[in-house]
This record gives sequence, C-alpha cells and structure tokens, in this order.
Amino acid sequence: MTGDFSGLFGFSKDKGLIHPSEVAKLFISIPYEKAIDAFKAFQQDQQLKVFPYIDVQLQKRILQSLPREKASYILNKLSSDDRTIFFSALRGVEQSSFIDFLDESHKASLHKSLGYPDRSVARIINTEFATIDRDMTIAEANEHLRKFHKDTEAANVIYVVDKNGKLIDDIPVRRFVLNEPEKKVEDILDGFCTSLKITDSKEDAVQKFKEYDRVVLPVINDENVLLGVVTIDDVMDVAEQRDTAEIQKFGGMEELDYPYVKTPFFSLLKKRSSWLIILFLGEMMTATAMGHYDNEIQAHVVLALFIPLIISSGGNSGSQAATLIIRAMALKELTLKDWWYVMRREIMSGFSLGIILGIIGLIRVAIWQQLHWYNYGQHWILVATTVAVSLVGIVMWGTLSGSMIPMVLKKLGIDPATSSAPFVATLVDVTGLVIYFSIAAIILGGKLMA
Amino acid sequence: MTGDFSGLFGFSKDKGLIHPSEVAKLFISIPYEKAIDAFKAFQQDQQLKVFPYIDVQLQKRILQSLPREKASYILNKLSSDDRTIFFSALRGVEQSSFIDFLDESHKASLHKSLGYPDRSVARIINTEFATIDRDMTIAEANEHLRKFHKDTEAANVIYVVDKNGKLIDDIPVRRFVLNEPEKKVEDILDGFCTSLKITDSKEDAVQKFKEYDRVVLPVINDENVLLGVVTIDDVMDVAEQRDTAEIQKFGGMEELDYPYVKTPFFSLLKKRSSWLIILFLGEMMTATAMGHYDNEIQAHVVLALFIPLIISSGGNSGSQAATLIIRAMALKELTLKDWWYVMRREIMSGFSLGIILGIIGLIRVAIWQQLHWYNYGQHWILVATTVAVSLVGIVMWGTLSGSMIPMVLKKLGIDPATSSAPFVATLVDVTGLVIYFSIAAIILGGKLMA
Repeated sequence: MTGDFSGLFGFSKDKGLIHPSEVAKLFISIPYEKAIDAFKAFQQDQQLKVFPYIDVQLQKRILQSLPREKASYILNKLSSDDRTIFFSALRGVEQSSFIDFLDESHKASLHKSLGYPDRSVARIINTEFATIDRDMTIAEANEHLRKFHKDTEAANVIYVVDKNGKLIDDIPVRRFVLNEPEKKVEDILDGFCTSLKITDSKEDAVQKFKEYDRVVLPVINDENVLLGVVTIDDVMDVAEQRDTAEIQKFGGMEELDYPYVKTPFFSLLKKRSSWLIILFLGEMMTATAMGHYDNEIQAHVVLALFIPLIISSGGNSGSQAATLIIRAMALKELTLKDWWYVMRREIMSGFSLGIILGIIGLIRVAIWQQLHWYNYGQHWILVATTVAVSLVGIVMWGTLSGSMIPMVLKKLGIDPATSSAPFVATLVDVTGLVIYFSIAAIILGGKLMA
Repeated sequence: MTGDFSGLFGFSKDKGLIHPSEVAKLFISIPYEKAIDAFKAFQQDQQLKVFPYIDVQLQKRILQSLPREKASYILNKLSSDDRTIFFSALRGVEQSSFIDFLDESHKASLHKSLGYPDRSVARIINTEFATIDRDMTIAEANEHLRKFHKDTEAANVIYVVDKNGKLIDDIPVRRFVLNEPEKKVEDILDGFCTSLKITDSKEDAVQKFKEYDRVVLPVINDENVLLGVVTIDDVMDVAEQRDTAEIQKFGGMEELDYPYVKTPFFSLLKKRSSWLIILFLGEMMTATAMGHYDNEIQAHVVLALFIPLIISSGGNSGSQAATLIIRAMALKELTLKDWWYVMRREIMSGFSLGIILGIIGLIRVAIWQQLHWYNYGQHWILVATTVAVSLVGIVMWGTLSGSMIPMVLKKLGIDPATSSAPFVATLVDVTGLVIYFSIAAIILGGKLMA
C-alpha cells in the first residue's frame, strides 16, 4: 500500500498518536462482530486509514455491513494497489458485487488489473505516481510536485517521462533537495532505471527488489509506457506468502489462502485431508509390497522389527535433500542446468550418510545381541549386515530421489514444493521396502529362508 | 546496505549502464579465482560499488588476495551496515585480522556493534544518517542537507533531534519538496515516530517494518538518543534467512550458514548427519517397541503388512499440524496463550482426518479380500477394523503432538522449528506402533493370538 503516513489518528497515547496498523492489530484478537462495530464507530477518514491494514476476511464483512455509500466511499478512496489486492482475494459473484460499488474510472482500471493472472505484478500495481519533464529546472519541478501531488509515499520517487508517457528515468525525491534549484532535471538523471514489465510475475518483482535494493520500482508495458509502480511493502508480503506456501507444502498439505486462525474449520480440513489421502493411497503400496514378502516375514519375524527404522531413515534423508534443493531453487541459487552437479553431490552425500547410519545400525544390533537385550537368532551377524547394507542403499536412494524429484517436477512445469518432503518420504517408503527385502534375500536367503 | 545508487558503472550496455548487482551476479557462476581476478581488474571506486553485493565467502577471499592498503580502503569505505554484516559472518582470528584493517573510528563503532548478540538489530545498523534542528526553516534545512549529506539512500528520511541527539521525529525527505520553503521544520512534523531499540532483535525489526510499512526505521538507545538507522533491504534479507532456516529445520536438519551451493561438502554433511543420527537413534525405539510384539507378529504376519501405512499416516498428520502451528507462531498469528484454542481445534481435526483415513483403510482391506488380491485370513473383518480404529487413534495422536510439541518447545524457550516435522514423525512412529499393537490385542486378541 502507498498509504499516507503523515496524517494519523488523533487519539492520544503515551508517545503521542496511534498508528492505524495498531488499531488493525487489535481487530485480530476480537470477534468479527465486535471489530465491525468498532470500525463503524470511527470517522470516515479514520476508517479509510485503518482499512488497508485489515485482513481481507474482515474487510469483506465490514463492507457488507456498511451502508452502500459508505462502503463505496472506502473502496473508491483506497490506493489502487490496496484495491486490486482486495478484489484479487474475492471470487465470482462476491467480486462482481463489490466492483459495482466503484466509480467508472476505478472500475475500468481494476478490470485491467484483474485481466492479468493472479501471479502477475499487475495485481499489486499502484497507479498513483508523480511524473515530470526532463526540461524543467528543479525549482519548476518542485513547484509542479507541490501543486499536483499529495504527501504520500507515491512522491518518494519521481519519474521522468516523455510526451507519450514513456519512461525515461527515475529520480529519488531527495535529489531535488540535495541539488541547487537552478539545475535542470536532465542534469540529475543517472541514466539508469530498472523497471518491471506489467507481464512480470510477482516472484520476478521479489527478485528484482532484492537484487537492486530498491524500495519502489516502475512498471512499464511493451512500449515502455509507465503504467504504475510497485512498492516494497507489497513485495515483502509476496515473499512472505511464497515462503508460507512453501513451508505448508513441505508440511504435506495444500497452501492455505488465509492464516491458520482465520481459516474456517472445514476449509482447513479439506486442505489437509486432500494431501493426506493422496499420501495414504500412495503409502498403501507398502502394504501391497509387503504382501509379497509375507512368507519371509513369517520365516523370520526379526526382519519385521527393523522396517520402521529403515524406511524412516530413507524418508528423513529424502526430506533433507528435497528441502535443500527446493529452497535453493526458490532463491535462484540453483537452476535446472545444475542437475548434474546436484546429482553427483547428493550421491556422495547419500553414500556418506548411509555409511554413518549403517555403522550405527550394525552396532545397535551387536550391542543388543551381546548384552542379551534381544535375541536376533544364530545368524544375528547376517541380520545386522542386512540392516547396515539396506541403510546404505535406502539412504542413498532417499537422498537421490529427494534431490532429483523437485528438479524433474520443475522441468515439467510443476511447482517443486509440491514434491514436499512427505511425498518423497512415501515414495521412498515403498521402494525402501523392496530394497530391504531384496538385500535380505541375498544376504540371508540361504540361511533363514530355508 | 545504504548504497549510492546514483553513480553507476561506466560500461555501456543496451539500456545504458550496468548496475553493480549485475556484476556481482556474474561472480556467482564463475570459480572463486576467476571472480577475484575480475574484481581486481576493476577501478577502486567500481570495486567499492560491487563489493556489498558479493557473498561473504567471496568477499573474504577477495580481501585476502588484495594488497593491504586496497583491502583496507574497501573496508573503511563500506557503509556501516555492510561492514558490520561482513564482520558478523567471520569468526575468531579471521575477524580480528580484518578488524586490524580498519581506521580507529570504524574500529570503535564496529566493536560497539559486535558487542551486541548476533540476532540484535545492532548487527544491521547503519550509522550514516541525516539530522536537522526543529527550529530551522525548510529552506535552511535544505541548505544544511546539501552541505553535509551525500546523495545516498541515507538522505531519504531526515531525523529531527534535540541538542543531546535525542530523537524528536522523522521526516520523509519528500516533505521538504512538497512544502513551501518558508515553512518551519516544526510545522511539517507529524508527531508520530516509530523507532527500534538498539537491544531489539532483528525479528522485532521484521515485524515492525511489516506492521508500519516503513522502508527505514531509526534505532535509539534507552535515553532515546538516535544511534543509527535500519533499512528495509537488510530487513528483507533477515526475513528471508529466517524463512530459509525454518524450512531447513522442517526438512530435519540444522540450518545452513551459507547457500547450498556455497556450503563445503563436509560442513553440509555435518549439518545433515547430526540430525539424521538423532532421528535414527530416536527411531531405533521402534525396533525395541516391535521386539515386544514379535510373538504377535509371528502369530499373524498380516499385522506387519500395515505397519508402514499406519505409522506414516501418523507422521504425515503430525507434520501437517506442526507445520501449520510453527509457521503461524513465526508470523505471530498465534501465541502461546492460544494453546487451548489450538488443542481443541486440532483434536477435532485429528478426529475427522482419522475417520476419513480409517474408512479408506477399511475399504482397502475389504476390496483386496473380496477380489482375492490378498487373503487376510478368516478374521479379515477384524483385521480391517483394527487398521481403521488404529488410524483414528494414531492420526489424532499425530495431530495433537504435532501441534502441541512446538508450543511446549516455545514455552521452554527452544525454537519451535527445531521440533521439525521429522522429529514429530519419529515420536509418532514409536507411539503409533504401541497404539496399533494395543488395539490389535484388544480387537484380535482372542481370535488370532490364540
């Protein structure tokens, strides 16, 4: 949002005044009905200041409970990025009913923004910005700005455009203060202006803000015409939402549309159960796989005892690898062309980790046997060897699938975070069982299976 | 960093000039030696512009390979936040050898910053900032700023301080342009100034920037004296590092100090193996737990077939719950006092999810039995019931532990992300086995165990 942070609430408090965001924060912890009543008690200009800081669910309910002209006032007075973000969160008939509240010009520009995909910067663009001509002197530019621009964040960076509205350069407003008023605008240009295309994704914007350490970037179309600006606060929200979505997908569920506390019980249940069911169906293959080995288990129950240990080690090492690779790709530290580097590295890692766990597993069986805590039978050394060798194989396999599956999904155009840790773990569980029993057949075959 | 974005590289390119961040980006993909040679080929002022955008490993190697006076020049000319961030990444003798390169005044202020803990805002503070008196007119203030301040981002917000350096208010520099020069500074104050304490954590800073939509915040001491400023680019890096650490902990490993591609093989192995070993040792209890049920497994192997399915369902539902709660706590959507709300909600969720999976499990066994894909014996209905009831119990237990363990850890002062999904999964695996075999004993006891 490009709010006006100069005018503030008139309430007095220890330090002077209350920032609208603090009021909005209070709303989080009280029931919707009370928050709506409190909101209604504010004066119209105060309502307008608090509104952008409120979460979208409450925003919707407030507008629904206000008289039409008051709701319409708020929606029309919002800064354009806040307005687009609010409408982007609505669906279908809800969206169109609120669009009806807008003035014709706002309606048109909103329709333009909503015409771009959800993930596009057009959904967070602010169409309020300050422009000047390159021929002006600084004094003239200052006067122009005083006349046409309000004291909002939109005036922190001034854009120089030509007669057709094409972007020439951007000037931080400080440069109008730090240079003599007689100088020409032309003389304080630095000739370097990074911009976003209207068709860029929000993720592109996050990268560009990070790379160039900017707080606001201009958005242009293919003809280089300045359409609006994107501000860093909206971009920070995008980055945070991306990370939250990634974390939730890692946790083996669909990303939530709203915070945990604001998500209704049944939508939460739906988001959670869908993936849980998919994973459950996948994991069912373990029962099928084990069905093939029921005679072996019958013959030596001792093999069954290590099943959870072995498959979870494959799953854990797979989660680690998947997490590392997915995050590194999200932060653009890795790209698909690095697959061979990643593969070599992960095979080495998987092998080393497998050896470490294998040795621990071997020692575990030996100690239990020697101290008579459990009797693994006369061939306990072969059982221990089976466990150790299986661990090497399964940890290597887990590490390799964990690192490669995200890259394959990315190649296929699927969000790699979807190959979340539990997904990899499920896959590794099934194949891990096959590896374990195959190795057991080789090592123990003659002895126990007889 | 509070770099100077006006002066840029003199290289010409399609659009005019090259931003130093683009040069730094090129360094990522080439070997260290080549990057160092390329860096050395730049002129000193270009070196200074590129340096802050380079990752700390390369920064270190570059400084080590430069002649002492050149390395010293760069370190002394860096903006103070970049300098502190560089030194914060060094340890022990490495740190002190580079401190030796600094001028006395920089040495003193660096020592002051490093005296604060790693997580403190003191580690990202910038001590360059612009101050004025409240009695000045805007014209006087402008002249003062022109005289004493360079065209850097530090001049985007001007601070009004009293004679003792105590912070009175902050003014975005645009307000000097948007108001008449005759006005007094006093008249354009808004009386509201959010600030950070020098003892605040970086995480506090992230929250405050998000809440107030600021791009720079002043940092004061207990006496309200202005010590420096924190800029949003450093805060964005903090938020990104926090999220990366959180994601890596979710993935069941220690957080990395450097990006995946920059972490040497053996440090990566150490970070991964430590948690993998802890989880492995924990998971060993499953072998012990199952040892108690070896007779039951011997008597009806059919029970063993569902072990991976059942414990992974507990693990997956636990991961989901842990992920939701940890993230919601990290974003301050949930606090510890909400534990009762969370507990009720998660019991309900766990019960519903358990019922869903239980029903699917029941159907699975029935179909396989009826279609003769597998024979679960004459008591197959009881086997199916055991699986279904166990799923309800284990999914509830997984959901409950997944949501409560992070809150308990937080209460104990431990980072809840450490109770990463695999940790919860391991715990749930062990207890899940006990639940499963206990339920089997009750339902099947008389029938199969006989």
